[in-house]
Amino acid sequence: MSSVEPNSMNADRTQAPDFSKLNGLVAAIAQDAATGEVLMLGFQDQEAWDASLRTGLAHYHSRSRGRLWKKGESSGNVQRILEIRLDCDQDAVLMIVEQQGGSACHTGRRSCFFNRVEAGRLVLDETPPVSR
Amino acid sequence: MSSVEPNSMNADRTQAPDFSKLNGLVAAIAQDAATGEVLMLGFQDQEAWDASLRTGLAHYHSRSRGRLWKKGESSGNVQRILEIRLDCDQDAVLMIVEQQGGSACHTGRRSCFFNRVEAGRLVLDETPPVSR
Repeated sequence: MSSVEPNSMNADRTQAPDFSKLNGLVAAIAQDAATGEVLMLGFQDQEAWDASLRTGLAHYHSRSRGRLWKKGESSGNVQRILEIRLDCDQDAVLMIVEQQGGSACHTGRRSCFFNRVEAGRLVLDETPPVSR
Repeated sequence: MSSVEPNSMNADRTQAPDFSKLNGLVAAIAQDAATGEVLMLGFQDQEAWDASLRTGLAHYHSRSRGRLWKKGESSGNVQRILEIRLDCDQDAVLMIVEQQGGSACHTGRRSCFFNRVEAGRLVLDETPPVSR
């Protein structure tokens, strides 16, 4: 449609995120398909992006371990990807996922974003974890 | 509650994100309070974090311009922060916001994540922008 603002993409580079801005990484958000809740934020390199597309399961690059990380590889709480979106400048990934096992967070909570900041102070969430 | 998994925070460092892992930055997500839609992802340094807390309006660090960026400073489409959350390891920020002006994206679309990836190929969103 002619009224659509052209975005900055072109046909030659529309199939992958731009890994050049952040030492080979892009930020990747996992959002719960059922609730809309933001579950976690990780980073993906080309390898993690490829693995996510190939398997349909969210993969990240673990910065602390320096390797490919299949989410849920030890806990079993994998994230099945229903939809992937890229942002306008192709340096952020949004994955709409089905979170298996009830929790994305290693603490057992559904979302990693369980700590609220109020009036500049962090308020620890005392909600018991979903699982465990 | 005793059943709560202890998280890794302690009282001395509970009031701010950990800026040490990403060259002084943390990833910051803006999520629409009304719809749950993920609007954009940016980065915050200490200055942008402080400005966000102080003003109640989302501020980011513009990597391309190398300076503090008040979201909406030119478009008027500011993001009023209703809630701030930090993730379990304190290196990602989630802001629940009221998006003024109907669009977070500089293309005029409501969300920056308007490009869908299907079967490994990016599908350009032909939805006309909300505003303009």
